[in-house]
Amino acid sequence: MQSDLNNKILLDSIKRLLRRDAVVRLKKIVNKSHAADMSVVFRSLSHSERLKLFDLLQDYEQKGLLFSELEEDIFLDLVAGMKPDDIVRIFETMPTDDVADLLGKMPEEHADAVLARMKREGSDELEGLLRYEDDSAGGIMVPDFIALTQETTAKDAIASLQKEYLDVEMPFYLYVVDEYGKLVGVSSLRQLVVVPPETSLKDFMTTDVFSVRTDMDQEEVAKLVARYDILAVPVVDETNRLVGIVTVDDVIDIFRKEATEDILKMAGAGEEFVETKSIFKSMKIRLPWLFASCLGGILAFFIIDQFESSLSKYIYLAAFIPVIMGMGGNIGTQSSTIVVRGLATGRLSIREFWQVIAKELSVGFILGLVYGVLIGSVAQFRYRMELLALSVGIAVVSSMALAALVGSLVPMVFARLNIDPAVATGPFVTTAMDIISIVLYLVIATLLLGY
Amino acid sequence: MQSDLNNKILLDSIKRLLRRDAVVRLKKIVNKSHAADMSVVFRSLSHSERLKLFDLLQDYEQKGLLFSELEEDIFLDLVAGMKPDDIVRIFETMPTDDVADLLGKMPEEHADAVLARMKREGSDELEGLLRYEDDSAGGIMVPDFIALTQETTAKDAIASLQKEYLDVEMPFYLYVVDEYGKLVGVSSLRQLVVVPPETSLKDFMTTDVFSVRTDMDQEEVAKLVARYDILAVPVVDETNRLVGIVTVDDVIDIFRKEATEDILKMAGAGEEFVETKSIFKSMKIRLPWLFASCLGGILAFFIIDQFESSLSKYIYLAAFIPVIMGMGGNIGTQSSTIVVRGLATGRLSIREFWQVIAKELSVGFILGLVYGVLIGSVAQFRYRMELLALSVGIAVVSSMALAALVGSLVPMVFARLNIDPAVATGPFVTTAMDIISIVLYLVIATLLLGY
Repeated sequence: MQSDLNNKILLDSIKRLLRRDAVVRLKKIVNKSHAADMSVVFRSLSHSERLKLFDLLQDYEQKGLLFSELEEDIFLDLVAGMKPDDIVRIFETMPTDDVADLLGKMPEEHADAVLARMKREGSDELEGLLRYEDDSAGGIMVPDFIALTQETTAKDAIASLQKEYLDVEMPFYLYVVDEYGKLVGVSSLRQLVVVPPETSLKDFMTTDVFSVRTDMDQEEVAKLVARYDILAVPVVDETNRLVGIVTVDDVIDIFRKEATEDILKMAGAGEEFVETKSIFKSMKIRLPWLFASCLGGILAFFIIDQFESSLSKYIYLAAFIPVIMGMGGNIGTQSSTIVVRGLATGRLSIREFWQVIAKELSVGFILGLVYGVLIGSVAQFRYRMELLALSVGIAVVSSMALAALVGSLVPMVFARLNIDPAVATGPFVTTAMDIISIVLYLVIATLLLGY
Repeated sequence: MQSDLNNKILLDSIKRLLRRDAVVRLKKIVNKSHAADMSVVFRSLSHSERLKLFDLLQDYEQKGLLFSELEEDIFLDLVAGMKPDDIVRIFETMPTDDVADLLGKMPEEHADAVLARMKREGSDELEGLLRYEDDSAGGIMVPDFIALTQETTAKDAIASLQKEYLDVEMPFYLYVVDEYGKLVGVSSLRQLVVVPPETSLKDFMTTDVFSVRTDMDQEEVAKLVARYDILAVPVVDETNRLVGIVTVDDVIDIFRKEATEDILKMAGAGEEFVETKSIFKSMKIRLPWLFASCLGGILAFFIIDQFESSLSKYIYLAAFIPVIMGMGGNIGTQSSTIVVRGLATGRLSIREFWQVIAKELSVGFILGLVYGVLIGSVAQFRYRMELLALSVGIAVVSSMALAALVGSLVPMVFARLNIDPAVATGPFVTTAMDIISIVLYLVIATLLLGY
């Protein structure tokens, strides 16, 4: 186990040894370190250092473990110059779902060359996995599981663990299938050891078995696993034939990945984590989102421009634009964030459509009143002009209430239309809200104060 | 298993039966539904409906299962009117960590009364658990685990699963301890069934065992479990004595909770999920965050007020304030979000301090140039005044570069000072950035255009 500090020590030693070209010591270190720790080290190395260190790994299995742990960019960097045959020998040591995943990331030509060479039995399995959508239950499942018939005795089941199922990733659940491979029950390794050895599986298995279809979205699968506190969920095809399992460690990865995606989308910073990418790539991802707010800003400019006569008459009107925009923007962000996260975690449901929106609108309106009075009073204190203070106050109330409404309405509507609601909280809605706030304010002020 | 739709059907039937007071049918439904599904139903019921339904649950164990699943507010609502003795009988059926958790949520007096009555053996265990911080390994661990001596044979270990360890939550790992209870090794149930029955644990256990200390932060524990793909991690005290385990299902909950907290903090919407709380509570949480942006907005107003002479001379200057604020605000949010999420997921480390900040500054500067030219050109197109266009362009470049710098610097500094970086992305930084952008713009414009 390596803590953050230990990783730093590990990285520093490796860098020092690389500089000194101390191959023997390097070999010792890389071969005894956990692949998860090595993947962190690889992040901070140059291309040539990575190649050198990778070559020092003794066997293909260790290279495979590292492949599974590396971030996409680093994996691609490492694999780019490798011969298909070498890649195949590494892939052959890895779980099929990981191989499918990596193949999906590689440039198509390179991936095809590798796939063509994988002539072992697993290859069919692999092509099977490649058939499913990446983010469906089929795409994330492992085809390694324990499947036994109803007549198998506890003793024989245990014996099978010593033979054909020696390498299964999740040996704690034993699935029971009929002669067509259809899922009919499940038992746990624990039940197996506590019943008399001659008992058949059918006498103690649970028949109320919980499964998901290959085409279920990975996020749904993850939610089910979390909700029912299970270690793995069986995946079945349209005929209820058992084709794989999704294990709890993949579920953790899904939740973390989905949370990261949501957070980034909400900030308009793409979906994928960009910090480890190059400056150029990072800019490419962030530029378009900023373009939305740029267009919005230019639109706001032309709108304000239209009110030039009011603004030149009451020059202080302009000074309230930022506070009105800011209050609307912030409460809108609160509302949309609460709704998006609530939908993602299941704390809110689209069935509560009107309830949620009515509540957000009320909160927006009441908080709008509080801040409208406050900011209106500041205006009155500074300029002693009741109509100006009133314009500012009304503008704050209406833009905060409207922002809370739009902030909750848009993600709810997106969720209903099966569009990812996280997109709704990004720069698009923020920018729209800015423009609405400005228009509201200037129209109200012009009406109350006159041209 | 209940999907979202099935939950809706379940809720509708229960509500209908409650109206009709169909006790027998209600009893049947609530007693055969999964506690996770019932907890969703409880969310949509009134106080009296909840009490009624809860009373229909047949045994204390089922009530306990439901207690574990309920959201805090609903649990408190339900438990408020209950007698301590009744609560004790339910708590006695529940895992100790869940009981400790619920006791921590209850009003102190009520909790003390319950604790005083819990005279069973588990009570010491419970007081032990209450000693640890809620969000430490000690606070989330379960004290139920399998601990055997090195000399135990595989056969005897299996026999112990049929007796004293029949109820252990995670029977898949068997921990090996010495005569002082210190952790010396670990074996898995799977290994146990594949070795000859007479083999001693010491001959096949793994001695390189992975553990965490009771005071480790829950988020760190969760990261370790995720990183090494394990189902449970043993928790030891300062003398390496095994005192509990943290299981993977708790790890999932931690990740989801931490992600929610981060997301809400980033939007300035508190830390706890507020949507299921009352309008009043929800406002209380959201009001102070908005106060920060209100103060900032008022400050911005007084600053703009200072530049009244420039603004009255060049009335169109005001029209560019929103776009400049917007561009700075959005790129700042991108930067801070990327850094906060990067730190939370381990993709970034505080060791990379200068690298991260330099990169963000570069991205901010380059994107600033792109948009500075674009927005400056719009200004030139509209007003045909080179100095105005130049002022707008320079203001965009400098406020975007500075926002990217501040957006990445603040969370990095917070992380170094051990303050939660997620706070840094909330309204405070956004508001500060708004003010900086406005000042920059007005100063640049005044310098270039003259008073």
